[in-house]
Amino acid sequence: MVSLTEIGVSAGINILSALGFLLAFAVLRIQPINDRVYFPKWYLKGTRSSPRNLGTVFSKFVNADMSTYIRFLNWMPAALKMPEPELIEHAGLDSAVYVRIYLMGLKIFVPIALLAFSVLVPVNWTSGTLENEKRLSYDQIDKLSISNLGKGSKSQNRRPDQYTVLVRNVPPDPDESVSEHVEHFFAVNHRDHYLSHQVLFFLSFCPLYCHGLWGLWGQRVDAIDYYKKEIEELCKQEDEERQKVITDPNYIMPAAFVSFKTRWGAAVCAQTQQTSNPTVWLTEWAPEPRDVFWANLAIPFVELSVRRLIIAVSFFFLTFFFMVPIAFVQSLANLDDIEKELPFLKPIIERNSLKPVIQGFLPGIILKIFLILLPTILMAMSKIEGHTSLSGLDRKTATKYYIFLFVNVFLGSVITGTAFQQLDEFIHQSANKIPEVVGESIPMKAAFFMTYIMVDGWAGIAAEVLRLKPLVVFHIKNAFLVRTEHDREQAMDPGSLDFYNSEPRLQLYFLLGLVYAVITPMLLPFIIVFFSLAYLVFRHQIINVYSQQYESGAQFWPDVHMRLIIALIVSQILLLGLLSTQEAEKSTVALLPLPVLSIWFHYVCKGRFEPAFVKFPLQDAMVKDTLERAHDPTLNLRDYLKGAYVHPVFQKNDIYKLVAFDEEEKNPIVVTKRQSRMNTPGGSKFNSSSGTNEGEFSRIPPP
Amino acid sequence: MVSLTEIGVSAGINILSALGFLLAFAVLRIQPINDRVYFPKWYLKGTRSSPRNLGTVFSKFVNADMSTYIRFLNWMPAALKMPEPELIEHAGLDSAVYVRIYLMGLKIFVPIALLAFSVLVPVNWTSGTLENEKRLSYDQIDKLSISNLGKGSKSQNRRPDQYTVLVRNVPPDPDESVSEHVEHFFAVNHRDHYLSHQVLFFLSFCPLYCHGLWGLWGQRVDAIDYYKKEIEELCKQEDEERQKVITDPNYIMPAAFVSFKTRWGAAVCAQTQQTSNPTVWLTEWAPEPRDVFWANLAIPFVELSVRRLIIAVSFFFLTFFFMVPIAFVQSLANLDDIEKELPFLKPIIERNSLKPVIQGFLPGIILKIFLILLPTILMAMSKIEGHTSLSGLDRKTATKYYIFLFVNVFLGSVITGTAFQQLDEFIHQSANKIPEVVGESIPMKAAFFMTYIMVDGWAGIAAEVLRLKPLVVFHIKNAFLVRTEHDREQAMDPGSLDFYNSEPRLQLYFLLGLVYAVITPMLLPFIIVFFSLAYLVFRHQIINVYSQQYESGAQFWPDVHMRLIIALIVSQILLLGLLSTQEAEKSTVALLPLPVLSIWFHYVCKGRFEPAFVKFPLQDAMVKDTLERAHDPTLNLRDYLKGAYVHPVFQKNDIYKLVAFDEEEKNPIVVTKRQSRMNTPGGSKFNSSSGTNEGEFSRIPPP
Repeated sequence: MVSLTEIGVSAGINILSALGFLLAFAVLRIQPINDRVYFPKWYLKGTRSSPRNLGTVFSKFVNADMSTYIRFLNWMPAALKMPEPELIEHAGLDSAVYVRIYLMGLKIFVPIALLAFSVLVPVNWTSGTLENEKRLSYDQIDKLSISNLGKGSKSQNRRPDQYTVLVRNVPPDPDESVSEHVEHFFAVNHRDHYLSHQVLFFLSFCPLYCHGLWGLWGQRVDAIDYYKKEIEELCKQEDEERQKVITDPNYIMPAAFVSFKTRWGAAVCAQTQQTSNPTVWLTEWAPEPRDVFWANLAIPFVELSVRRLIIAVSFFFLTFFFMVPIAFVQSLANLDDIEKELPFLKPIIERNSLKPVIQGFLPGIILKIFLILLPTILMAMSKIEGHTSLSGLDRKTATKYYIFLFVNVFLGSVITGTAFQQLDEFIHQSANKIPEVVGESIPMKAAFFMTYIMVDGWAGIAAEVLRLKPLVVFHIKNAFLVRTEHDREQAMDPGSLDFYNSEPRLQLYFLLGLVYAVITPMLLPFIIVFFSLAYLVFRHQIINVYSQQYESGAQFWPDVHMRLIIALIVSQILLLGLLSTQEAEKSTVALLPLPVLSIWFHYVCKGRFEPAFVKFPLQDAMVKDTLERAHDPTLNLRDYLKGAYVHPVFQKNDIYKLVAFDEEEKNPIVVTKRQSRMNTPGGSKFNSSSGTNEGEFSRIPPP
Repeated sequence: MVSLTEIGVSAGINILSALGFLLAFAVLRIQPINDRVYFPKWYLKGTRSSPRNLGTVFSKFVNADMSTYIRFLNWMPAALKMPEPELIEHAGLDSAVYVRIYLMGLKIFVPIALLAFSVLVPVNWTSGTLENEKRLSYDQIDKLSISNLGKGSKSQNRRPDQYTVLVRNVPPDPDESVSEHVEHFFAVNHRDHYLSHQVLFFLSFCPLYCHGLWGLWGQRVDAIDYYKKEIEELCKQEDEERQKVITDPNYIMPAAFVSFKTRWGAAVCAQTQQTSNPTVWLTEWAPEPRDVFWANLAIPFVELSVRRLIIAVSFFFLTFFFMVPIAFVQSLANLDDIEKELPFLKPIIERNSLKPVIQGFLPGIILKIFLILLPTILMAMSKIEGHTSLSGLDRKTATKYYIFLFVNVFLGSVITGTAFQQLDEFIHQSANKIPEVVGESIPMKAAFFMTYIMVDGWAGIAAEVLRLKPLVVFHIKNAFLVRTEHDREQAMDPGSLDFYNSEPRLQLYFLLGLVYAVITPMLLPFIIVFFSLAYLVFRHQIINVYSQQYESGAQFWPDVHMRLIIALIVSQILLLGLLSTQEAEKSTVALLPLPVLSIWFHYVCKGRFEPAFVKFPLQDAMVKDTLERAHDPTLNLRDYLKGAYVHPVFQKNDIYKLVAFDEEEKNPIVVTKRQSRMNTPGGSKFNSSSGTNEGEFSRIPPP
């Protein structure tokens, strides 16, 4: 059913391109000129300084030390060397756990592949035993991974969010301001534990910042003097604005960060219901300060419900009918129409050979653009849903993206047809026919998915390590914009793990692997290669490149686990469907308990492990509180927590420090939200910028 | 499609029988001899004494006052007269709320019926508007009802369960006993709030009690002397047994009731996670002392998961394949076989006309017996599932029974065929066909359901008020067993609302009413009559008869609400199916948002109101604590809580009191679990018995 030659050719091309990328990376990364592209994380940590400071002009740009070329694959063992605890310390728990997803992929698929190739490929397949075997090995690995994580995730040192609870939907009070109301409420209802609170403000800084933004295209005058004056001016304006916001009660959000004297007190408040009306005084763990999504902190309960309904309906239509607007745009993107609208393009388009090529590619390009934009669209939808932390937004977006990929890539490729046609078919087909139809066409699609894995997986991962875009952008900036060492810092773009973008795509490989494990085991090596390569590359990246913007304590793990179980159940149901078409009725019945047991296993795991990710046990809190009191009896918690949950705009100290700072560096004036997302570790001395507008004070306004 | 004459005849018969029951009740209840059958609750409360103490011998048994016969329907307004707060005080919140379900039925269906008869019956129906209208009025009423309840449910006075938390799965400790371990854990982790705890014991009293039970059939000797000696002997044995249990650590359950100094402390403990392993030190609100189901307090986490899986699978088979064992038993119940096994029955069976009659009825009788036993079977399944309170058992059993009724009565009648045949049909039919098939046959079944409502609803409710079984049993006992006034107390059987049996059946009427509201509005008056009659009757019963065995704070309400929403969504989907068969494609599409909005509404309500039933807000706790401290500064809480959560077997005081008690009364020796379920209000002076074995000390052993 699949021509081995075809796969061979495809594999050859993709292996070559992947190897090309890797080779290019190996050579490029040892050039001093690229040092900031491939090791930004160490620069941000302040533990690496430019190798260009030493040596000749030539050796500043090109590595002439031939011995390093011989060891050009050194990065691979180096990426594996760092032990896990150090990795967690260095890159954060989120990143370390993320990389473990790939490791888990290997742990799952290597035993399955061994089994499949020793049993399934030579002999004809004996599905029952294998499925059982698969489940077993899978469960054990899975369990191990989770319990390990559960422990790690809470073994961190003192952090402000351990003492702090986010309170939302503070009800209005006729006599008291929000701040007084919050203080009184918690002073009464958590008498022995309440410490302090931080009121939040609606921000309306746009005019000011927009002015700054547009300054980017303003006239160029004597830079230092101009900016010096400008900064002073802006600081004054801002200060007034800030005063206005702080004093005007209309700017105060009905929400607050409330801090407690002990972790115990905070754990109690976060886990309990405060009043008999469960739509006001909502408490939850405060996200890590860097993780707060400020814009969504003050959405009323009913509005939140309405927003979620609207987004759920929109997402349904986006998933099943996204081809409708695409087709519409494609029909608009007719070259003749474009010529009519923009006549000056006519000579270009009309060149004899170009027109049919453009006409042929245009629809594909429009679809591709949509697919590239899709994660961003989904992220915007999640923001409308009103989640209060960046990590929450990432998780919800990942869920949406996974559903989209499942319906449109997996089912879409298997059934061929738009999602809407599938939906129509599903509704008009009997329930037992659906797994049969899908199960029947599954084996025929193996070749397609192999190619998919090679293109999207292998080549994609190899491109990831090469960092082509940051490389080009860095050198362009370096050539045209960078004037000082600090500018060069700003030109670095360490990037970060885009969980919402990459996790759903890698989950697709789990799904493919589990579905094809019994049906076409030939697919497994492709997946194993993907997981090995990805593990290596991402471990390297989180050590040397990425700088995470927040730390959530691997809260995404329950989602990862659930999607794995979904993949498992889908694979079991499709196997059932396939077997029933093969007239193997008895084995079908024998396999029926599998999905039931899988679902049960999911619930057991949920009950056993999920609380570790959403709750903070009182015993742990008490232990830490007691230890802290013994070790650090003089700790002034109020000072420690002060300012932790202040909106970056109000962190005054920074601003004045900046003005006093070396003005030649043209540091950003204020640290906006956008910047706080910019991966700078809290303790870093660089209040890093977005890396695009160096030498300007222009910033994106906070939303 | 429905012959009006047929319905008329059926209605006539059922109305007559219902009226007959009601008339019989009206006459019987004013006879002094029946006073204890129809007003047991007042006797238990101690506010009513037998009218037989006065007057002539004749007037002791028969009411000769003709004026009361004229006012024989007085009970109806009397049942309505008691205002709601008093009703809650008198009969408990659970009962008051239960009666409100019927009231809600009226509030939903009277407006729908008015609308249906003013729009649907004369004109041809314009479904879109009506459905919207229906939803609106429904939602509002529903909302009102819920929020009212939410308030009422927590407005109670000091109760032990407000200070107490049930801790399960106490992990074993090598050095400490369970009791020490519990004390240390809570003294450390709830330092400022922990007060005391009550350890629980596995019981093995069976031999002792069984002996007592069998004593029922023992020889009759001089009663008073014999029992006096016997009681002393048993008390001694029991005391030894009790000592053994208390001292032997093997009898100690890894569970405890932990009490706190304040409601606030208990609320915190009940709502939080204690340790990082969420399968040990599980805390939850303690049920009311009478509501505890002692046997299930010590089931380990994994065993609980396995039990639930087993029960879920068994319940699936029970629902869809219950006809298999029934058919098997029916085939066994062949008269010829019975004759062979029990030859002495031969002459009776062989009488010429009897045989075909028995043979014809036997299968029906077997099915009927199964259906009567069904709620008991489901209750046994819930017990295996491991719920820790009687109210929880009631709720879970009700859910199972509702599913069974929905599948086997509602769908079973509509599609005609066993549940398994339906399941088979559903699997082999396309998803959009199912509502069509059901929708098509729905109108044709209206007559059947009208008859069903009259038989099961009208006549059933009228029989409920007549209390035929307790009436007969009371008089039999009265004639043969009762020797003292106390015996007469014991002969009373006040009964109680069997929530798990009656709620699912009344939910079926909500389902029928909503489904037929648009399709066959003629059904609505039947349902309205049912709800009015039931409201009247049950209000009368909870005032005068029933004595609830526990008080759960109407925790069943979220279940009631959810089943209503399910009925609403089912009715909407069936309407969609029906319309699509009528080629009214456009209205079908217009109605599509309805189920989506209903589901969304359910989630909004869940978020808004459900926490009121499962959590205890800290603010309320703090308010009550503060008030109590002000009003009752000398309250010794330790004394107040002492013994509240002691297993009835260990409530020593009672036992010695009983021995010292007037032995002629032959009170029950120990208050077993069975007795604690026996509806006695806590403060009652009667440690009432099961009402069957008066004059004996025989008791069912605790499980």
